[in-house]
Amino acid sequence: MIDLHLIGIGTGNPDHLTMAAIRAMNGADLILLPRKGGEGDGRSDLVDLRRVLCDKVLTRPVRVVEFDLPARAAEGPYIEAVRDWHAAIAAAWRAEIDAHLPRGGKLALLVWGDPSLYDSTLRIAARLQREGLDLRSHVVPGISSVQLLTAAHAIPLNTLASSVTITTGRRLREQGWPEGADTVVVMLDGGCAFETLPAEGIEIWWGGFLGLPQEALVSGPLAEAGPHIVALRAMLRKKHGWIMDIYLLRRSAGSRL
Amino acid sequence: MIDLHLIGIGTGNPDHLTMAAIRAMNGADLILLPRKGGEGDGRSDLVDLRRVLCDKVLTRPVRVVEFDLPARAAEGPYIEAVRDWHAAIAAAWRAEIDAHLPRGGKLALLVWGDPSLYDSTLRIAARLQREGLDLRSHVVPGISSVQLLTAAHAIPLNTLASSVTITTGRRLREQGWPEGADTVVVMLDGGCAFETLPAEGIEIWWGGFLGLPQEALVSGPLAEAGPHIVALRAMLRKKHGWIMDIYLLRRSAGSRL
Ligand SMILES: C[S@@+](CC[C@H](N)C(=O)[O-])C[C@H]1O[C@@H](n2cnc3c(N)ncnc32)[C@H](O)[C@@H]1O
Ligand SMILES: C[S@@+](CC[C@H](N)C(=O)[O-])C[C@H]1O[C@@H](n2cnc3c(N)ncnc32)[C@H](O)[C@@H]1O
Repeated sequence: MIDLHLIGIGTGNPDHLTMAAIRAMNGADLILLPRKGGEGDGRSDLVDLRRVLCDKVLTRPVRVVEFDLPARAAEGPYIEAVRDWHAAIAAAWRAEIDAHLPRGGKLALLVWGDPSLYDSTLRIAARLQREGLDLRSHVVPGISSVQLLTAAHAIPLNTLASSVTITTGRRLREQGWPEGADTVVVMLDGGCAFETLPAEGIEIWWGGFLGLPQEALVSGPLAEAGPHIVALRAMLRKKHGWIMDIYLLRRSAGSRL
Repeated sequence: MIDLHLIGIGTGNPDHLTMAAIRAMNGADLILLPRKGGEGDGRSDLVDLRRVLCDKVLTRPVRVVEFDLPARAAEGPYIEAVRDWHAAIAAAWRAEIDAHLPRGGKLALLVWGDPSLYDSTLRIAARLQREGLDLRSHVVPGISSVQLLTAAHAIPLNTLASSVTITTGRRLREQGWPEGADTVVVMLDGGCAFETLPAEGIEIWWGGFLGLPQEALVSGPLAEAGPHIVALRAMLRKKHGWIMDIYLLRRSAGSRL
């Protein structure tokens, strides 16, 4: 029996770890760290962050093993590409489990942000269960990028008594402003999907590299802040070789409540 | 100048605290703990939790002061009642600041869950600024009840590539299933607003008293789990004198992704 602990680590800054996360890391028999080989972009920073985190936080001799994370196919329909990718990751985990935990035990994975939010780890675990592996998932919540964004700007997520929609850049682009929403948080935006909206009456709070040394923040009416973000984002991407960003959009009337 | 630190404390269990929260608590000149006098319901448990947390976490002699939190008017239109209530709380903070930090300093407030989510502390701080107080807000994110819910059930918040709507019981009741949403999280529900939905094709994951010793979890197709939750919730409310709960609803097709 494998007890899989999915541990949310925020942005990898030890300050964002909860006491429960630190305990779960120290209680593991094996910590698997994915290595995104050959991508060549700055994302390998993130692997390093996880390794540094282990060095800082582990007070017991826990076994830490790195493995090569399969890359996602860049071609073909999105959902199918993601499914194939999950299957490949599941196989990679399986190989590490067979090699290092053949008689079962506590396996820990360090998940960026919170394990519930736009992360595939729980889905891959479910796939291994369906394939017959005797595995039980446990989740240790972590500080998500949504929380880092609102905290950095010191703003509430919701306006008074209203709802919030969390969505992706892809969906915002395809479907526009979500029906009935006052506040929209956009993640996983490969570009600047906010440019596809009529800017009038919308405010934006944007954050890049939140919680990392490269952190950048911009906010204001979308008509003015939007073009500024487009330029800054391009500049940061060029400078660091990659970018990770998130933003909150609010219809202006609501933002005053 | 007042530096106001809004510190997310999860459910008050020290395990949910981040290292940043612990440091912010120890770095404060004054921690204000609201006392909800005379309510007579079990919510005074929550004040006690905050006090116990201070005892456990403070390693420096930080001044901790309790103050009476004004009660919200039970009558009148909701938004107006909330605004009046915020004004009364702002005045109560102001009195404590004048008494204990007349020359400014670091004031900390311990906020349930995450300070961005359905919490009025940031709005009250903004009100004090508008009234001319020289105050700057800093937010330390905390684990929210949304994260505790998904972690306890070990489920993702979103289905693959889809969006999520976080809303209130009041809005679900008045407006039904939010247009275009696959996943809906409902907070601040004084009753069981899910009963107003056609149950067909919807799954529910419910959690009461998450992270507390009274924690209860139920999940399943809404048609079957719904009536069970209604009965359990009434029973728990009677037993403990109060209840705090949250749930996630998913259109069943999506839940298999
Ligand atoms: C695969 S999702 C993982 C989200 C993560 N589980 C969380 O809780 O934040 C990656 C997306 O999260 C957002 N994100 C994650 N970390 C971020 C950071 N440090 N700064 C800005 N955005 C971030 C970006 O929108 C990015 O495209
Ligand atoms: C005023 S809001 C505060 C939310 C808080 N800031 C957070 O981040 O979770 C209170 C609502 O949060 C939810 N909630 C907060 N703590 C909870 C818990 N421990 N268990 C279940 N629901 C909880 C309930 O829906 C409740 O009505």
